[in-house]
Amino acid sequence: MSERDNPTPWIRLNLQNIPHWNPTATDPDTGARTIHRMDLNESPYPPSPKVVEAVARHAEKINRYPDGACPDLAERIAARTGVPASRICFGSGSTELISNVVQTSVGPGDSAVASMPLWRRFAGVFQVADADVTLVPSRADGGTDVEAMLGAIGNNTKMLICVTPNNPTGLALSPDQLRHVVEATPENVMLYVDEAYHEFAVHAGFPDALDILKTRKGPWILTRTFSKAYSLAGLRLGYALCGSQAIADAMRLLSSTFNVSAFAEVAAMAALDDPDYTRVLLERNAEERARIISGMQAMGLSPLPSVTNFISCDVGVPGAEVVKRMREKGVRIAGWGEAEYPNFIRVSVGLPDDTDAYLAALAEVLAEMRRDGIRGAA
Amino acid sequence: MSERDNPTPWIRLNLQNIPHWNPTATDPDTGARTIHRMDLNESPYPPSPKVVEAVARHAEKINRYPDGACPDLAERIAARTGVPASRICFGSGSTELISNVVQTSVGPGDSAVASMPLWRRFAGVFQVADADVTLVPSRADGGTDVEAMLGAIGNNTKMLICVTPNNPTGLALSPDQLRHVVEATPENVMLYVDEAYHEFAVHAGFPDALDILKTRKGPWILTRTFSKAYSLAGLRLGYALCGSQAIADAMRLLSSTFNVSAFAEVAAMAALDDPDYTRVLLERNAEERARIISGMQAMGLSPLPSVTNFISCDVGVPGAEVVKRMREKGVRIAGWGEAEYPNFIRVSVGLPDDTDAYLAALAEVLAEMRRDGIRGAA
Repeated sequence: MSERDNPTPWIRLNLQNIPHWNPTATDPDTGARTIHRMDLNESPYPPSPKVVEAVARHAEKINRYPDGACPDLAERIAARTGVPASRICFGSGSTELISNVVQTSVGPGDSAVASMPLWRRFAGVFQVADADVTLVPSRADGGTDVEAMLGAIGNNTKMLICVTPNNPTGLALSPDQLRHVVEATPENVMLYVDEAYHEFAVHAGFPDALDILKTRKGPWILTRTFSKAYSLAGLRLGYALCGSQAIADAMRLLSSTFNVSAFAEVAAMAALDDPDYTRVLLERNAEERARIISGMQAMGLSPLPSVTNFISCDVGVPGAEVVKRMREKGVRIAGWGEAEYPNFIRVSVGLPDDTDAYLAALAEVLAEMRRDGIRGAA
Repeated sequence: MSERDNPTPWIRLNLQNIPHWNPTATDPDTGARTIHRMDLNESPYPPSPKVVEAVARHAEKINRYPDGACPDLAERIAARTGVPASRICFGSGSTELISNVVQTSVGPGDSAVASMPLWRRFAGVFQVADADVTLVPSRADGGTDVEAMLGAIGNNTKMLICVTPNNPTGLALSPDQLRHVVEATPENVMLYVDEAYHEFAVHAGFPDALDILKTRKGPWILTRTFSKAYSLAGLRLGYALCGSQAIADAMRLLSSTFNVSAFAEVAAMAALDDPDYTRVLLERNAEERARIISGMQAMGLSPLPSVTNFISCDVGVPGAEVVKRMREKGVRIAGWGEAEYPNFIRVSVGLPDDTDAYLAALAEVLAEMRRDGIRGAA
């Protein structure tokens, strides 16, 4: 490429001309009195009082660096998971972790296989890794097409990426599906399972993916987060369980010497100290999720049977337009990122009054769009 | 490379077999009653009471994601620096920022030029970028050899890296030197200036590097941090001022959607609200720095004339051994990372009693080593 074709040769080609995607951008004032924030799959509940206390107590000591290995928390998670502390790596939420995981195995020009739809941040991660990614469409019922994913693995494939439960579908792989993936993914291919919504899936009756993953002969990485079930999205803390020490060392090299804040370790420890609080939140989430699903069914819609803290649905009209009109009514929800799924919306489970506001606004918006003669995109 | 030669083909070659460097590892109990933590260039003072209050107040809301662009803080820094908010990017301390800055311009096999000695984390960053880096030795007086650095720029050089003040020397580029770098670095080469110790240099009478950098015609990035002068090392927050919007967009793609914690923005805003507190800490730092330097001079040593919160010195005997013996006496200091500088030590400025403990322990250690007949490494 000549200098004329490339006016900014000091920026790597794979990083050029990609506008910043900021899903958490503070909203311009829409005029709505209350904003129901149901677009980011956050917990609507404050963290455990033990977390609040631990953070306040640590603030005076924040002039000191944390131990970059989060040794106390690593031991704690090791005891819960059976994965040795030295193979547990921390990151600023799944957001940082997925980037480091992908770059552990996938270099410029290397291939990876993932399913579609996929959490939108992955697109940026693939761009940064300069990877050649095959996205395998999900089945008609929204479930990941495991067989097609395995079939898409080629000679240059370095990584298979399974997100379970998947965002934005809210659906988890069945134990049989996951077992099949663990066995059939070649032993020279990294199997990456992201389980950001782990606690919700377990609460919904799914088995622990880790138990199945541990039976794998080839390399694997599993990521989880404190952002969702522990009400700690703003803390930025996730962790990776690595199938070997060599993988953990590569992950740590990619992150850095001290990538998570000192508040992260003390807050996560405090959250783990309050399992009753977490359980109550999971129960309330299941209740509101059921209310949203039955409310949508009452409108004639067929939301996907989510096991998470969000629900997706084909609403038969363009999702982006629904999102826009819902925002005007003070209810923030999300569309699906991919052009292949134009008629889907995704709503995060909130408080009871969020559910009420969401269902009322959705009924209005869909009626308005029908009245305006707006049809679904093909 | 055959599979036999490469037993872990699922890990990229440039990331293999590099043990984790953890400078903040919690010390095994050395038996010393008090540990003087003078190895990490931390502030020994708690953050401003306004920071403690802001963090405690935000803890209940930590279930929500922050706006990934830190818009309030960006506007605040824009007003202080004259760099538009859209060109200010945030990261988990300089640690994350330097990695993203390097990867903005330097891809696998590309070249960069930096000076030696250099903060040790850069080695990991260069490894991750898979870069070919020329390290230019500093002058005999410890100062960066600007002319030699400019001379090392070749056809494949994508980035020139200047750290000022430099860690571990503690020395800053003179305004004339920086001006020369800004003018003589080719316009197709990214000029990266890290200024983690900016506030100390300004307090010591050096001009703002940004004013000089802004005159540059070619691309540039400047990074700073809240870790040092603002007593917020544990918060993990630094920022990059970018010479153009395209550079800022690439930096944001490399970091992620929300890479810093929600505590980071509120704490940094509170710290900036208390300039008197920051000034007092800078003054106390200058006082203790002077005490350390004159105490070392009284031992016949010639510490480098630091303008930062740490001091380096050629002690004439192996630094690693001095570090080890000092630790046994409860005083944590650092050596220099490079094998080329075996006889250097680096000590961070602490509280008055840290200074006392350090000077007493150093006198003892150097006397013991003389008695043991230990000579300096060549």
